[in-house]
Amino acid sequence: MSRSQEVPDKEFVRLSSIALKIPVSRLSGMLNRRVLQKVSGFFPDHYRFDKGIAGFEAGTALFKTDDGIETVRGFPKIHRAMMLGVGIATHFEGVPEVAVEEKMNGYNVRVASINGKVIALTRGGLVCPYTTERVLEDGGREFFIDHPDLVLCGEMVGPDNPYVPKNIYPEVDSISFFIFDIRHKNSGEPLTVDEKHELCSHYNIKTVPYFGKFSIDKAAHSIAGIIRELGKKDREGVVIKDPEMKLSAIKYTSSKSNNNDLKYAFGFYNDYGQDFFFSRVVREGFQAVEWDEDEETLHERCCLLGESILKPMVSTIKKRQQGERITEEVQIRVRSLDTAYKFEEHLRRLGIDAQFDEPQLVDGQYLIVIRKFNQSTNDRTSAILNGHLW
Amino acid sequence: MSRSQEVPDKEFVRLSSIALKIPVSRLSGMLNRRVLQKVSGFFPDHYRFDKGIAGFEAGTALFKTDDGIETVRGFPKIHRAMMLGVGIATHFEGVPEVAVEEKMNGYNVRVASINGKVIALTRGGLVCPYTTERVLEDGGREFFIDHPDLVLCGEMVGPDNPYVPKNIYPEVDSISFFIFDIRHKNSGEPLTVDEKHELCSHYNIKTVPYFGKFSIDKAAHSIAGIIRELGKKDREGVVIKDPEMKLSAIKYTSSKSNNNDLKYAFGFYNDYGQDFFFSRVVREGFQAVEWDEDEETLHERCCLLGESILKPMVSTIKKRQQGERITEEVQIRVRSLDTAYKFEEHLRRLGIDAQFDEPQLVDGQYLIVIRKFNQSTNDRTSAILNGHLW
Repeated sequence: MSRSQEVPDKEFVRLSSIALKIPVSRLSGMLNRRVLQKVSGFFPDHYRFDKGIAGFEAGTALFKTDDGIETVRGFPKIHRAMMLGVGIATHFEGVPEVAVEEKMNGYNVRVASINGKVIALTRGGLVCPYTTERVLEDGGREFFIDHPDLVLCGEMVGPDNPYVPKNIYPEVDSISFFIFDIRHKNSGEPLTVDEKHELCSHYNIKTVPYFGKFSIDKAAHSIAGIIRELGKKDREGVVIKDPEMKLSAIKYTSSKSNNNDLKYAFGFYNDYGQDFFFSRVVREGFQAVEWDEDEETLHERCCLLGESILKPMVSTIKKRQQGERITEEVQIRVRSLDTAYKFEEHLRRLGIDAQFDEPQLVDGQYLIVIRKFNQSTNDRTSAILNGHLW
Repeated sequence: MSRSQEVPDKEFVRLSSIALKIPVSRLSGMLNRRVLQKVSGFFPDHYRFDKGIAGFEAGTALFKTDDGIETVRGFPKIHRAMMLGVGIATHFEGVPEVAVEEKMNGYNVRVASINGKVIALTRGGLVCPYTTERVLEDGGREFFIDHPDLVLCGEMVGPDNPYVPKNIYPEVDSISFFIFDIRHKNSGEPLTVDEKHELCSHYNIKTVPYFGKFSIDKAAHSIAGIIRELGKKDREGVVIKDPEMKLSAIKYTSSKSNNNDLKYAFGFYNDYGQDFFFSRVVREGFQAVEWDEDEETLHERCCLLGESILKPMVSTIKKRQQGERITEEVQIRVRSLDTAYKFEEHLRRLGIDAQFDEPQLVDGQYLIVIRKFNQSTNDRTSAILNGHLW
């Protein structure tokens, strides 16, 4: 990148103070405390909020443009209904109907046009070089020519997902972007569900599967049916929205998805946070109660849960016993090797210890297998196998 | 208690500095930071180490006696073998044989004679009025007349255990004290396993069940058999010791005990620490690998684990749905109501929210049911049942 793109902190703080209506002294304080961080790299320098603060969501990114500062707001946390029926009734009180969309399992991305260039931000507000190359290959560039003031929020999904590898979507061969929200720059205000669908349809942009609108009193029953069907196909769950987008959305996931998460994570049992395990287990408890399961169904749920926990751990321990190194394997597929190099650098910046295999040329693209080392699980397992105590 | 028993901090610090060989300034600093805490109550004032520091274990208690300061050292943490075979081989390298004792499931108590009075300390170094009344009723007072310089370390076990209620020991009707270590005051140095048994036998003091000594190369196999048998009877596991007590002891528990712990704790899922759950689950993984289980045995282990997790949680949620308050019920049995009042005060000091039922006179003793309120589980469950999101 050229030096001319660099923005001195002082100038950035002055401009941001105007744009965000936050005093200069407070912004400087945030920079010092690293709540607000400068990101330098292959893209225009920008700043990101590492935590939610002063009404700005974590992952909010600030860019210096010709017009001053442009803000891409962090994607708001979607809270989870632990009990579908009462959760919907309480959260959407006064709303006649809810819109139901599939919650796909990939990684959350916001795409925006900054100074005429389309970039993709991951949840934390970093520009991802790989996602930026891949995100709009199915279309959508025209959208930003007409609507540079809008942000596409969606999920990157598929086997060539280097963050959360999932091979459960038959409709995706490599990696694909599915929109769930369109929001305004700066304010973060969302379009309504209908406005979003109209725009996406006009510009031929894919959206996450849409199940339609349900009257509030019938929603829980219908969604329970949807959830069971999604579960059968290993798919994650749903996001339930106020069609007008005035209330925040909520989410609900299938038992199969909880179990798949556990299965995956217990293979790296010492690298995942204990709350990751705990929260999924508690969801199972509440779903079993809400669905009023008989003895046999509950027994089946218990066995599945136990297997999702123990079997991957047993397999990891055995692998380590054989001297194998425990790695999480992901892959990317790029047209340009330059993107792969940049992505390698990007992962390093995220503190992820990964090894990139030799690129394989497949149908004119480079397929690169990436091995992430789960050091904590490797070390802990080896130590125990060598007789260390707990 | 009379005011004359009180020791001013300054005098205590001066005397402790001599006894513990720690500078006065450092001890004062510990008092200020509350690593070292004064305990006032129904017994002689004493001081306790809240954390391990300066070579003194957490729970170490300091008493002012006629001879200066007497120290009852905190009971050392016993590390856990995650793999029995390699754990024993590594930890006891160079030791020809190990002594194996049952690890009983109750609460850890140290009993000492201070200024001629026998008192019982719980793990944290607090004098427990209930334990003090009950601990030596099966005998042992004579021991302290002859050996005021020794400390009996053991487990209080039985249904009348107000800390960790367990009704799994047919040999205990109410609550009983089982010795596992005898240690010297001040130094904390243990007697050998044989010396301990001799003394206990001479004074007719009960010890935890003793399985004998095993040559180091056969120990793991024998202990695996013992563990399976203990598991069948819902009993916890074993502590494995260097008979000379020069090396620290290690422990190993049965799968049944892991599961029973989980079953109990998941009934109060939001009150127990997530590491409580996690550590037990990981133990199951390593045991399954070490015992090289076939598909069917592993499936059975998975189902049991899943049921230990989900069933108590489902039952708690359903109870709360019926408007029931989730309480942990324990009981004490005392000869003197005064002990019950003191114990009530003791629990309050520990920050435990509990309600004591009316005492029932049973065979000349007062049986009192205590209900501990698991506020966090109550609140979280109610909130979710009322539609709160996670």
